[in-house]
This record gives sequence, C-alpha cells and structure tokens, in this order.
Amino acid sequence: MKNNAVLLIHCPDQSGLVAEVTRFLHERGGNIIRLDEHVDQHIGRFFMRVEWQLDDFEIEEKEKIKKIFYDRIGHKYDMEYEVHFMDYKPRMAVFATKASHCLYEIIYRTQSPSENWNVDIPLVISNRESLRDNVEPFGIPYHFIKVEKGKKEEAEKKQIELLKKHDIDFIVFARYMQIVSDDFIARYPNRIINIHHSFLPAFIGPKPYHSAYERGVKIIGATGHYVTNELDAGPIIFQDVHRISHKDSVKDLIRKGRQVEKIVISEAIRLHLDRKILVCNNKTVIFD
Amino acid sequence: MKNNAVLLIHCPDQSGLVAEVTRFLHERGGNIIRLDEHVDQHIGRFFMRVEWQLDDFEIEEKEKIKKIFYDRIGHKYDMEYEVHFMDYKPRMAVFATKASHCLYEIIYRTQSPSENWNVDIPLVISNRESLRDNVEPFGIPYHFIKVEKGKKEEAEKKQIELLKKHDIDFIVFARYMQIVSDDFIARYPNRIINIHHSFLPAFIGPKPYHSAYERGVKIIGATGHYVTNELDAGPIIFQDVHRISHKDSVKDLIRKGRQVEKIVISEAIRLHLDRKILVCNNKTVIFD
Amino acid sequence: MKNNAVLLIHCPDQSGLVAEVTRFLHERGGNIIRLDEHVDQHIGRFFMRVEWQLDDFEIEEKEKIKKIFYDRIGHKYDMEYEVHFMDYKPRMAVFATKASHCLYEIIYRTQSPSENWNVDIPLVISNRESLRDNVEPFGIPYHFIKVEKGKKEEAEKKQIELLKKHDIDFIVFARYMQIVSDDFIARYPNRIINIHHSFLPAFIGPKPYHSAYERGVKIIGATGHYVTNELDAGPIIFQDVHRISHKDSVKDLIRKGRQVEKIVISEAIRLHLDRKILVCNNKTVIFD
Amino acid sequence: MKNNAVLLIHCPDQSGLVAEVTRFLHERGGNIIRLDEHVDQHIGRFFMRVEWQLDDFEIEEKEKIKKIFYDRIGHKYDMEYEVHFMDYKPRMAVFATKASHCLYEIIYRTQSPSENWNVDIPLVISNRESLRDNVEPFGIPYHFIKVEKGKKEEAEKKQIELLKKHDIDFIVFARYMQIVSDDFIARYPNRIINIHHSFLPAFIGPKPYHSAYERGVKIIGATGHYVTNELDAGPIIFQDVHRISHKDSVKDLIRKGRQVEKIVISEAIRLHLDRKILVCNNKTVIFD
Repeated sequence: MKNNAVLLIHCPDQSGLVAEVTRFLHERGGNIIRLDEHVDQHIGRFFMRVEWQLDDFEIEEKEKIKKIFYDRIGHKYDMEYEVHFMDYKPRMAVFATKASHCLYEIIYRTQSPSENWNVDIPLVISNRESLRDNVEPFGIPYHFIKVEKGKKEEAEKKQIELLKKHDIDFIVFARYMQIVSDDFIARYPNRIINIHHSFLPAFIGPKPYHSAYERGVKIIGATGHYVTNELDAGPIIFQDVHRISHKDSVKDLIRKGRQVEKIVISEAIRLHLDRKILVCNNKTVIFD
Repeated sequence: MKNNAVLLIHCPDQSGLVAEVTRFLHERGGNIIRLDEHVDQHIGRFFMRVEWQLDDFEIEEKEKIKKIFYDRIGHKYDMEYEVHFMDYKPRMAVFATKASHCLYEIIYRTQSPSENWNVDIPLVISNRESLRDNVEPFGIPYHFIKVEKGKKEEAEKKQIELLKKHDIDFIVFARYMQIVSDDFIARYPNRIINIHHSFLPAFIGPKPYHSAYERGVKIIGATGHYVTNELDAGPIIFQDVHRISHKDSVKDLIRKGRQVEKIVISEAIRLHLDRKILVCNNKTVIFD
Repeated sequence: MKNNAVLLIHCPDQSGLVAEVTRFLHERGGNIIRLDEHVDQHIGRFFMRVEWQLDDFEIEEKEKIKKIFYDRIGHKYDMEYEVHFMDYKPRMAVFATKASHCLYEIIYRTQSPSENWNVDIPLVISNRESLRDNVEPFGIPYHFIKVEKGKKEEAEKKQIELLKKHDIDFIVFARYMQIVSDDFIARYPNRIINIHHSFLPAFIGPKPYHSAYERGVKIIGATGHYVTNELDAGPIIFQDVHRISHKDSVKDLIRKGRQVEKIVISEAIRLHLDRKILVCNNKTVIFD
Repeated sequence: MKNNAVLLIHCPDQSGLVAEVTRFLHERGGNIIRLDEHVDQHIGRFFMRVEWQLDDFEIEEKEKIKKIFYDRIGHKYDMEYEVHFMDYKPRMAVFATKASHCLYEIIYRTQSPSENWNVDIPLVISNRESLRDNVEPFGIPYHFIKVEKGKKEEAEKKQIELLKKHDIDFIVFARYMQIVSDDFIARYPNRIINIHHSFLPAFIGPKPYHSAYERGVKIIGATGHYVTNELDAGPIIFQDVHRISHKDSVKDLIRKGRQVEKIVISEAIRLHLDRKILVCNNKTVIFD
C-alpha cells in the first residue's frame, strides 16, 4: 500500500487543463508517479487520471485536498472528480449463487500476495447455502439470504443492512443470478461490478451460452461491467473471448466460458481497485 | 490442383457409418487422405468429410460416384451428401460497393500462388463505378449495375443474367451494401458468403461500428457467414475479433475493423474452397 | 465416467488404415463415438484416435482388447498404440515449490464437477513446506521432501517411493522449480507434464519473465509440455500468450503470466486426461 | 495532415517534469491534444509524448521550437528529445526480395484514404526483378539492385545513393532477405523497420517457419522491430501471433504467418508515422 493519491477528473475540454492540474500538484510538493489523459473529441470532454506521492505533499490533511482542489481548479472548469488514497483498503462484498469459479478466483487473488490486490472481503452474500464451504475456510463470513419470489424487497433490506454494517465500498456480483432493484443499484452507483457470461451486447439475459450454442457462433466471451438499471447494459469495463467450434456442446461452452469469466471479473476488479476507471455517458475510460 | 475427391455427408447418427463409408472407398482403391467426423449428440446427427485420391479409384467416371455411393450407402442411412472434385476450379463472383479492402484482399489472395486458392474470378459486380480502377488492372471484368430505389428487381435480373452467363458457382459479398431479395438468395443456397462487420449477433444491421462505439464495447469483430433470408442471421463460418479502447473513435474502429474483416472473409472463402464446411440447422460444421 | 475405450495409434502411413480399424471395432459391436485421424505427409506417418462405447463390445475382458487388436491389425502395420479406458480414474501427483497459483487451479478444477476432470490427486510433493496450508484443507496429503544441493538422488529416491506406493499414473510439475534426473524422467515417459513460464523456445531456463522484460517483447506466454531429458525441450502440448507493454514491470509480467500459466497447465492436463495426445518425434498430435 | 507538433522526450526521472513541459506549451498558446507519459521505475527514466496544435502557438518558426525548448527546459534535465511536425509527409523506402504480401499491404495502406497514413513511397528497392509488376502499376519507381556475393558493399553504395537522392526519411524491410552492413544501419538509426517472421526471440535467423515446425510449437508469430547491428535483436515495436496445430505443414505456417506479418509490419509503420515510438536501451516505449 503506497502513500499515493489518485485524482480522477472529467470536464468539458479546454486548453491548459493538464498544465494547470500538474502545476497545482507540483507546486505543493506532489511528485507525479503517473499521468494519463484522454480527450474525447466526439463529445468534447477531457478525462484525466493523475497519481502522485503524498510524502512531501504540502496539504497534509487528506480531507482537505478535495476542497482545496475544488477552490483552485475544480470549480473553474466545471470538473467532476474524485480523490482516492491508495493506502485505504476498500471493502468489497461478493454476491454469488451457485457457480463457485468466480467467487473462488476472487478469494484466491485477494489472498495471493503476488496479485497485490489492496482489498478486504468482509462478507459473502448468497441466495443459496451451497457455497458456504467454499468461503468459510478462508475466514470470510458467509451470509445466506434467501430471495423468495415476490419478496425481493425484504431480502434486499437484509442485504443492505449487512452492507452498511460492514462499511462496504463496492460490490461484486460473482455470477449472482438475481436481478436487483433500482433502489439497490442507486445506492452503489458505478460500485457494483457484474460479470455477464457473454460478449455483450450479444446474448443479453439469463442463458447466454445456450443462446450462443443455438446461434452457432465461433467465439464466446464474457463482459465485466458496472450495474445500472437497464439489464446487462451498464458501462463495460473489460471483455475477453474464447474461440469455440462445432465440437463444443453447451456444456463445453460453459466450461470454456468459465475460464474467460474468471479472467474478466478479476481484471474488472483490479481496474476498479487501482482507480483506473472513469465513467461518463454509460461508457468507461480505462487508464491502464 | 490435386486429383482428389471430397465427400461431405450428414445423416441421422448410427453405429458403423465410418466403417461403411471408409470400406466403400478403400475397396474401390480410394486412398483416404483425410477424414473428419463429428457427431452432434444434441440432435443425434452424424457429420463427415472424407477426402481421397482418385488416381487408382475404380469408379473412373466422376459423374457416377455420386450415384453409386447413393445406391450402396447413401439411401440406406438417409444421407444428405455432396461430392466435390478438387481439380475443378470454382468460379466466384465478387460483389462490392464502396469499400475496397475486402475486394482487394480477395483479388490478391486469388492471384498469390502461396495462398493456393483454387478459384477463378470471372467478374466483379458493383452498384457503384468507383472501384473499377481497383479491379480492371488485374484483368477482371468489372460490371457496374446500378441499384435504384424501388428497382431492385430490375438490377437483380441483370446480375443473375451475368452470373448465369459466367457459370458462377458461388458469390462473395465483399462489403456489398445492398440487401438482396429472397429469390436471389434461393438461387445460391449456402453459396453466398457475406462479411458482416461486427461480432454477430451483436450489432446486426448497417452501421455496426457506430453502434459498437456507442455501446462502449472493448472488443470489436467481424463475421463471415452464408446469406439466408433473415438479415445477418445465416450460418456463421468464421469470426475474429480485435481489442479496442476508449481512445478509439468510430474512424479508428472502422480502420481496425478492416484488418479483421480482411482476415475473416479470406478465411471463409478458403474454407468454402477447400470444401470444409457442412451446413445443418442454420449452423456450420467446419472440418479444418 | 463413460464406459468408453480410446485407441491411440501411429504407424507408417498406408492405404486402408481407417477402414480396417473402424471395421475391426464395428464388427465387434463397438459404436464409434469419435474418430480423428491425421497423416503427416512430411514423415509419411499415420495418426489416429478412436473412441468407442464398450457396452455392446464383444471383447468383454478389457485386458484382451490390446492383444486381439495386435494380432488382427497392429502387427501388420507396425503400429505403436495404446488402449485407454475412460472409466479408469488416473492418479496424478502434483509437484510444486513456492508459487501456489497453478497448484490451486489444478486442485480447484479437480474438485469442480463442471470441469469434468476424471482424476484423483493422491498426493502433493514439494521441496518446501510453505504450500502445506494450501493443500491439506482439500483433504490431499502434502509431502515435504527437501532437495539439498548434491543430494538430489536421495530426494528423488523418496519421491519415487511415494509415487510407487500411491500407484501414480502421471505427474504434473505445477511450477516445481527443480530439475529432475534423467533416471526419474525415464520412469514416466510422456507422463510428466511441466508448465514453463514462457513462450518456448523463447526464454528457456529459470527466469523467463526477467528475460522477456530485458528483451522488451510485446507478448508473453506459457508452455505446457512433456518433460524430456533436454531442459524445456520436450513435446509441446499447449501454449497461450498475453499481450504486454512498456508499462509492465517484471512484477506485472509475473502477475499477468500467472493467468496464462493457469490456463495452459489446466489445458495440458485436460488433454492428457481425455487421451487426446499422441507423441511422435518429440512433437504432439492433439486430437481436440 | 494536422498542423500539430509532437515532442518525444526521455530523461532521468525527477519531480515536476510534466508540469514544466505542459506549462511551457500552454504559456505559448499551444493547445495540448494528447499527452502520454511513462516512468520506468527500474531504470529511473522518464518518457513523454505530447502533441499540441500549432495554430495559435507563439513560436511561429518551426525550426526555433527545438532550440527554445532546449534553452528553457531540455538542457536543465539532460533530456533526449525530438520534435516532429505532423504536416510533414515522411518519405519511406521499401526494400523487398521475393515475397510480395508485405510490400502489397504497405502499398495498399499507403494509398487507402481510410488508413490515413501520412507517407510517401518515392521508391521500392529490390535485389530481384520479380516484384516489378507488383509495384510499377501503382506509379512507384522500382529499382533493381543486385546484391552479389562478396559485392554487398557495392550494392549498398547504390542503395544509399538512391536513398539520399530521394530524401528518404526511413526504410521498411518488407521481407527483404539480405543482411545489411553496420555502416548502412548506422545511417538510419531507429529508422529501419524490419519484419521478422517469428515471435522473437524464438527462431532468430533465416528459416523461422521451418524451425517452428520442427519444434512443434502451437503458436507462431511475427515481430516488427528497428534494425540494429545485431541480427533480429533490435528494439521490438509490435508482435502478433496465430494459433497453429499439428495439421499445419511448413507451407501452412508460411501461409498463416503471412497474415500475421502483414498486420505486424503495418502496425509498426503506423506507430512510426504517428511518432508514437520512443527507443531507449534497445527497448521501445509505445504511446498508442
């Protein structure tokens, strides 16, 4: 965990933005470790991610950085921006149902030093009991919350209580096979990562591998995206694919797809943790 | 051009099919060069491609092979099958509109000895004049047939006359931006190859790169398929993809996509020429 | 576990081989599920994999199949061949050192029903203690066998005793960082699978990611191969790659490479278990 | 052709570099279009590419920009840097021997408006006559310069005369099968792009596809790199790969490899033209 800060900015494009932001940091003793910027010419919008060392940074109280930045620069350019501190360990809740492969991959990577994931998993929530033994041996509490037909609201109430109690920062749907309410989503804007087991926008909905088989495609894929109100239509973070052939049954697609799903969800989480994602107009800018 | 024959078979699955077909060929002096078979357990159907040398084959008159095979084996198993002779040079018509990259790639490969494409291009047909100079220097006749609104029938009549006159075996739509009639398609079942510039079934329709850009996907693709009555829904022959990012404008997608399109259409044509494609239930079996 | 048998054959190519083998099976009531053949024109050699159902097969004693096949066909064509029974569960020993990711992936897949791996892991052997806690919770015995400098022979003796005692069929080196002796290898010809963390033959040896970094390649890879006496030069089973950039440090290469390694070793094991690999002239024929 | 300038910088890393460079440009009215920077922590070196509009830039005489930048910033930080103007059309010489596919692809892309390559090809040089007809129809002069054994020096003298006469900025070896002298290379440092038909560093030397076949690899590749004195060891610009199998003969590898080679050489040229490549320590930083 490095004592670095990350600033994620987007605003209407205009001349001098990089110069002004970098001078702001440099004049206050902030050593810039990495800077990425992007101008979307199509919509005339400027995007920027800058990471700098806080060791010799003049503004010692972290809470003040956001305010001071706003006063000096942010308000002038109508910026939308976030400040993140890389020594803070985000708290991630994982939701799952039956399939264990994504859940497992996430737990393994969280616990593997070489992955360097700066994250805690205070809890796993599932609408089934079946994955408990995959989770508890790792010292992670497993909460079974049944989602009964017509009583989703009730279940979500319990889920939200748990999320609040555990100060959850963001949620990962690791093949969680329930559709959550708009109210639930609104509480975690751009903070719920879902893995969809198809190469979106192909095969939206519940049985994408069956649909892929029916259609006879030659490549399958998986999509990691933020959850929005519209099913499988949120901003895409990462996608990957796998070549298949006529030899593959639906079962084979499921098996091969899992490999892709594991990679895609891991990559989406890593990008989120590294604060490399900006969202604008239901699309992502990924500074990787 | 090898003096080989290819048998493409599909029929309801049952025991002993491979043994019977291979014995049929072996007993008549046919040396099997390559054999591929596939059983689709889901629909209980058997698929087979077998290629053998004709040099010492007892049935000397090629026209008889199909008939004799039917009498001895085909009719017993309710087989659908085709016999092809690899020393025959198929005659391919290429349809194009404005974009030259696929057309060019096809002409180059046709003329490049190392590609080993056993094919003739007796003509290119376009609804524009603009590609004439890309085609005629290669000694290929270029036919401009205007497709006026409401007068498609008239244009197709002219096209079909040309196709007949030149004994065309199959057609390639190399980014031909017109929708042809059901009647036209019915004349060339599984013999019109189209390149769709998206990873189907995502982004069906006329402007897939624009749609991909709007949706913010991270991978684009192209699809080579046989044309059927339903738009962009025919049996898929080959697909390929290319990774993109937020940095890519629609123009970039078009540029990157072309690279993929060239590969996909070439691959689809090669598979067709090598008689490696079987179609059943709107899906392909590719024995490559 | 299906009651199927698999015959893997290679021999000098000649006419009628497929016909003869398939007739042999068909006449004895063997329903062929899948057949793959390949002729390497370069060396004039025939390769074949055929899988058939044993349910109605006339030769009821499995041990006799090999002998009868030899008498009727094998000896005539100078065939090298193996017969495998898919209801037999092979016993796999996993060797590891420090890195846990491959070991973990293997254990997870072995235990995941959807992977459909028909295999037992009777033991894990390591030259370190550190992975014990990654293995024992899954009910797999963990054997720490120290490999001291100059005393490799001693260590191997212990290893071989364990392998014999547990009737081990094949071994996987899941990032096992020791070079084993020729004698050890000779006991398990084409039955030791190693993962090398580079795209062989690039970067043979112990620190391939460092070498890849130094060379500035733009793609890294991993290679699953059978172990032979020559270091990292055995027959290649499967390879995969991952794109990298100047932004990636050696640490990043290691992290990204692990993803590839996990896929490659899993794929190599799967192909081995499914009896889809034939080895000839230090190269593999993969019937997948 | 945009009226933009590009500054490519590398120097020992230190705090404030981005701020100082961007302020320099902004204060003089330069609107930054795109900025990329990278710090190689391993060697403590800073890399930067910045592109800005010249329309309102105060320093009107282009020749002065380099000097003024040096006085104000460059000398202070011991920078190595280049300034390029995007409205200048670089002059590229293409060298070829027998294979036409790369040469063809380059000519096609140069002439295709949608590729948007800002480049001229004043001449093609070959040590064979055979490609003349592939080149001259496009209005590009073709120079046949024989390279006789023991008389390479003589041939290079002629080549260099032509290159000088035509004010050539950089050279592309489009499968040019001759090794040029150190003296030749020294005249065009980081300005000769070569395509090597393997995934370097695997299979250095003249017959990589044969070697790949012999080794039994499962993936082949191609490498675009700048030419240095050491054979096939210069800084790598771009690599790509293609999956192969035991079914592929050497001929198939050559055919499949060509597809990859065309993509790789095109991509390397595009990156060079867009001034997105920095070279340091025999490695590239690619700001794409």
